[in-house]
Amino acid sequence: MRTVDIIQKKRDGKPLTTQEIEALIQGYVSGEIPDYQMSAWAMAVYFNGMTAAETADLTLAMARSGDQADLSSIPGVKVDKHSTGGVGDTTTLILAPLAAAAGVPVAKMSGRGLGHTGGTIDKLEAIEGFKVELTKEQFLEQVKSIGVSVISQSGNITPADKKLYGLRDVTATVDSIPLIASSIMSKKIASGADAIVLDVKTGSGAFMKSLEDSIKLAQAMVEIGDQVGRETVAVITNMDEPLGLAIGNALEVREAIDTLRGEGPDDLTELCLVLGAHMLQLGGKAASYSEARSLAEELLRSGAALGKLRELIAAQGGNPEVADRVELLPSAAYQVPVQALEDGTVSHIDAEALGITAMMLGAGRATKEDHIDLAVGIVLSKKVGDRVSAGETLAELYMNRNEPMFTEDMTQRTRSVFTLSQGEVVKAPLIYAVVTKDGVQMLQ
Amino acid sequence: MRTVDIIQKKRDGKPLTTQEIEALIQGYVSGEIPDYQMSAWAMAVYFNGMTAAETADLTLAMARSGDQADLSSIPGVKVDKHSTGGVGDTTTLILAPLAAAAGVPVAKMSGRGLGHTGGTIDKLEAIEGFKVELTKEQFLEQVKSIGVSVISQSGNITPADKKLYGLRDVTATVDSIPLIASSIMSKKIASGADAIVLDVKTGSGAFMKSLEDSIKLAQAMVEIGDQVGRETVAVITNMDEPLGLAIGNALEVREAIDTLRGEGPDDLTELCLVLGAHMLQLGGKAASYSEARSLAEELLRSGAALGKLRELIAAQGGNPEVADRVELLPSAAYQVPVQALEDGTVSHIDAEALGITAMMLGAGRATKEDHIDLAVGIVLSKKVGDRVSAGETLAELYMNRNEPMFTEDMTQRTRSVFTLSQGEVVKAPLIYAVVTKDGVQMLQ
Repeated sequence: MRTVDIIQKKRDGKPLTTQEIEALIQGYVSGEIPDYQMSAWAMAVYFNGMTAAETADLTLAMARSGDQADLSSIPGVKVDKHSTGGVGDTTTLILAPLAAAAGVPVAKMSGRGLGHTGGTIDKLEAIEGFKVELTKEQFLEQVKSIGVSVISQSGNITPADKKLYGLRDVTATVDSIPLIASSIMSKKIASGADAIVLDVKTGSGAFMKSLEDSIKLAQAMVEIGDQVGRETVAVITNMDEPLGLAIGNALEVREAIDTLRGEGPDDLTELCLVLGAHMLQLGGKAASYSEARSLAEELLRSGAALGKLRELIAAQGGNPEVADRVELLPSAAYQVPVQALEDGTVSHIDAEALGITAMMLGAGRATKEDHIDLAVGIVLSKKVGDRVSAGETLAELYMNRNEPMFTEDMTQRTRSVFTLSQGEVVKAPLIYAVVTKDGVQMLQ
Repeated sequence: MRTVDIIQKKRDGKPLTTQEIEALIQGYVSGEIPDYQMSAWAMAVYFNGMTAAETADLTLAMARSGDQADLSSIPGVKVDKHSTGGVGDTTTLILAPLAAAAGVPVAKMSGRGLGHTGGTIDKLEAIEGFKVELTKEQFLEQVKSIGVSVISQSGNITPADKKLYGLRDVTATVDSIPLIASSIMSKKIASGADAIVLDVKTGSGAFMKSLEDSIKLAQAMVEIGDQVGRETVAVITNMDEPLGLAIGNALEVREAIDTLRGEGPDDLTELCLVLGAHMLQLGGKAASYSEARSLAEELLRSGAALGKLRELIAAQGGNPEVADRVELLPSAAYQVPVQALEDGTVSHIDAEALGITAMMLGAGRATKEDHIDLAVGIVLSKKVGDRVSAGETLAELYMNRNEPMFTEDMTQRTRSVFTLSQGEVVKAPLIYAVVTKDGVQMLQ
């Protein structure tokens, strides 16, 4: 079948066969199918959508387009977790040791940050000596021996997705739920997960701005998981403000350690307990969600999860004392408070703008080549719903540059991410819904 | 504005501004905008359409993308005619002298044939000595002195349309009425026409298979003409069988001369009178359509139109005696009758298949480099509605090769384009409707 006929079939609203989708993806990766045909096809998908079977076929075709991790030598159900974007998201640093502490093997390949979104690998490098690059054998051995390893994604994972995503970005074909869902799921499948817990962020700071779209995306991903035999649970969570208080690499490691110690921010702790409970349940460590939830709470309370972090750090060459003495993490030279100019109640915190400000402070990369300052960042003092008086501190900047104009600019930018309201503020729920193959459970 | 934002705007169903469409077309022709963005945009247009203003803007942007003929030095309303594809279409050879004989200046640039569609320029070259290439000055001078010139399209006319059409062909974005309409109209406008008569073919042998779509296409083109100040009339005509009887270059010239002499096939004569009348009316030579129709009939009857063909041939270096002695045209060595194998009534003649057979005989080019044999072709003996007995001649092949297997193949192919029915055959009307800026006038 000619490529133009495949495009026309999709254009005319007819579902493509497994063979047609395979041909499209293989041809695109090999360079036989040019960008201009692929972008026309993507636009036709934007308008006509894809069936569940087509979406699963696309996901598998992309997962198979490059290297695939083989975790079969590790016993047990390997559960992976993925968050759809977000700012100041420290959950991986908490959930990997938590799940591993319960005996769920976590063999995680993570990325570096780009733009205003932080990367787990950058955060781990804030721990002195921590090696993010292991050989495949070292990686598997470590998961077998201590139950957890987190390394930098290497090799040629889902090249079809990379190429297609780059094309969609410049052809206005990003906003298609089957294309987003297959992009995320193809990477998880190629990474070797048996089961997947998804944290789908919704709201102004997230990729999906509306709850309705977030649920649709979650359903599409859960459906893919079901079609390809990878049980998947999606939790729809609020991104109308950043999660936790810290944004910046070392600052987020500290917050993760605080949380593992039971002293973390309420929202971050609660989300980790929910996501962690789903990981434990999928990993077969609890018969019900409530049992899994109790187990997750116990792993925090007992220090078992924190202990697993110590093991993880030690196994990858880092200094495990960091888990008990956060002052060993890199620290910034200057701490600058950002004060409110008026009274009010915080009604919104623009997570994306805050992420960009942290990036400008040096905590993130604007381009792949940028150098990161692991110590700098922002720590919020107030969150949505908090009362603020003029002069009170909204957030603190952690900086290594002390030039008045730069400091002033950063201060103003940080202040402007806070919206203060004079009326009553109704805080949005942290968790809206849980989507499983059995349906959508609304929690609010 | 970034190209991706223009694509997104169209994707979201919002009309593009004149500036946005200009930027898109200019950027595409200059190579700044890549094919993959243009094809995504074309697919978005396929789904969301374009407003009349957008379609006019696109038409003008494409018309201006290359050379534009300047006919302003020629006094009078320059009326052009265009047929949307079709097989064995000899109307230009009849209408150009007919309109010129009434004083409507015809400065026509025509193309060569490719595939199964014949080209006026190839047909004119069947006249010994006829020069199809004149300088711009010679071309304009000839129209001023004798009222008519037909030359081969040269220069860089509507490169944007050429490039976009090539892209649409491989991205399943051909079937979009605003894109088809702007493609046709941009060429007419760049060719310098003040007013345009369109012959929109409909039916199995045409690009537009349904009457409804043909009317929509006609309306879109008439609307463009109205928006850009080029009065346009479209006649919707039947293409369930070829027009006239002859297919092949010299054979069609002979048929055109017969028609100018009042001895042509009924359907070709009638269509030329209708299209010619609209040309005369648009050219200001008659106050009403019926007056224009009478004038067109008179120009045939009096021999004035045939006289103008003589002048045209002489002015461009050909032998004007051809107009009176068609035997001076190249003739094929062999004439092979194709006989019916059974009795019946002709219910359909596949014009496209017939055009392809004529091409295989040597009358057309499969690729641009192919050589044409001007003498060969096919002349129909029967048309839709005619009774046929087994053994009776359906058509005659005019051939210069006499190899039994080739002849047998051509004979079988020609026979198979005829569908014979045992029941009653209702002949479709020749002309379905006339579309002007005032609306659609259904004629049947």
